[in-house]
Amino acid sequence: MKQFTISSSKKIDLNDFCPTDTDKLDKKDIQDKYLELQEKFIELQEVFYASKKFSLLIILQGMDCSGKDGTVKKALAGVNPNGFVVQSFKQPTLLESEHDYLWRAHKETPIKGNITVFNRSYYEDVLVTRVHKMINDPIALARFKEITEFEKYLVSNGTIILKFFLHISKEFQQKKLLSRLETPEKHWKFSMADLAERKFWDKYQQCYADVLSNCSTEQAPWYVVPADHRWFRDYFILQRIVTTLEDLKLGYPAMNGTIAQLIEEVKESN
Amino acid sequence: MKQFTISSSKKIDLNDFCPTDTDKLDKKDIQDKYLELQEKFIELQEVFYASKKFSLLIILQGMDCSGKDGTVKKALAGVNPNGFVVQSFKQPTLLESEHDYLWRAHKETPIKGNITVFNRSYYEDVLVTRVHKMINDPIALARFKEITEFEKYLVSNGTIILKFFLHISKEFQQKKLLSRLETPEKHWKFSMADLAERKFWDKYQQCYADVLSNCSTEQAPWYVVPADHRWFRDYFILQRIVTTLEDLKLGYPAMNGTIAQLIEEVKESN
Repeated sequence: MKQFTISSSKKIDLNDFCPTDTDKLDKKDIQDKYLELQEKFIELQEVFYASKKFSLLIILQGMDCSGKDGTVKKALAGVNPNGFVVQSFKQPTLLESEHDYLWRAHKETPIKGNITVFNRSYYEDVLVTRVHKMINDPIALARFKEITEFEKYLVSNGTIILKFFLHISKEFQQKKLLSRLETPEKHWKFSMADLAERKFWDKYQQCYADVLSNCSTEQAPWYVVPADHRWFRDYFILQRIVTTLEDLKLGYPAMNGTIAQLIEEVKESN
Repeated sequence: MKQFTISSSKKIDLNDFCPTDTDKLDKKDIQDKYLELQEKFIELQEVFYASKKFSLLIILQGMDCSGKDGTVKKALAGVNPNGFVVQSFKQPTLLESEHDYLWRAHKETPIKGNITVFNRSYYEDVLVTRVHKMINDPIALARFKEITEFEKYLVSNGTIILKFFLHISKEFQQKKLLSRLETPEKHWKFSMADLAERKFWDKYQQCYADVLSNCSTEQAPWYVVPADHRWFRDYFILQRIVTTLEDLKLGYPAMNGTIAQLIEEVKESN
């Protein structure tokens, strides 16, 4: 797992991370383990929800076709929808863009006991905006610091943050775009914007590398998830979430009051 | 199904509805059908989400222990969390209570393509408030009309509304409360407030009957769901949702533009 984790500021080159990496695992090696993880996740979420001690924020970022929606649908399906929220951030509304860039995200951070997935996030404000020169480098650098401080603040106040960069190859994106065009039931997933953004591939990769280099901390590390193999992506992310929840060692909250007496009261209440 | 549906204003007596009713079905009769419904629901939700034509609002109301959370967890598990939202309404915050009573609910109504479950709703403003005499009868009557108009407005603007009253017996509630007290992992579900509210059982039943009598329309009917048998509750609700989605006869949206040309463009984009 270590080779995929970035937990401190250092210069990152995405060429050092292979999108087809599977950590020497085979799909069939992990099938049983995966089912086990899904069961564990469901159990752990229940305790997490009941205990109301922490919040869990999961950030998904990646190029178009990297599988952000798919991660939610595949790796996190089966979750109890009570206490589980998916928040997609699209182009800001007029009102949102009149606020500072963290405003709309902060409103949607999870309450205690909840898990919230950000499908894209405030990181877009140092990615798409930078690729298209809506902000310059000094502003980007300032934002890296602001984001790091914001995450530090959230962590200090009981939010656990997991940040996954879904890393795909340029060839894989092409294959996915073609598959969307060639399958009528997938046409709705095809967007002309994706094709336009593909032309900026290298620039995006550079901006992502800068994010990983500048916004990785011990408390809120980035995970570079090799995502050309969907099964490995799902396995990796689910495992990371389960391990995080397990490490909390949460239990169901104990009850205040005398149980025996309450039982009597209920029995008498007809 | 008809006997459980209230689609027009008429005097309702909840004694005419049996909480243990299973529509002459046996649990084992519906097991295959239930799995089939779950699969269908997942397929239909995908098309619903892709087509972005309608919104679906599901309202769950019922006494404490009637299984509102359980309905979401059991009947609706497996749903793609993208485009599926559970919104729980608890005691209003100070800000919420300074607004009109529909305000906080209106903010959370589903966007096109989304399904939102209201776990409790603005109906609490003619239930708990009425039981505890925070509003008088003329205000309750005025609210019945306002709520009916509000729902009519939502329906006219593309929201489909399904309202489920989870109908349990007083004995069943007692059994559930005891089970929560007798099982340590369920202690967190026990609330002293539930025990206090149980004393107002009859008054609640009367207020629920008034809601069903006054706020049922062709466009936004109430379903009285016998909920003492959890399997029947889940089966009933899932079936109603699936039928509603099927009746829309939605298809994946067609694509604008020449597919062949786009395929060429993607192939050339290296």
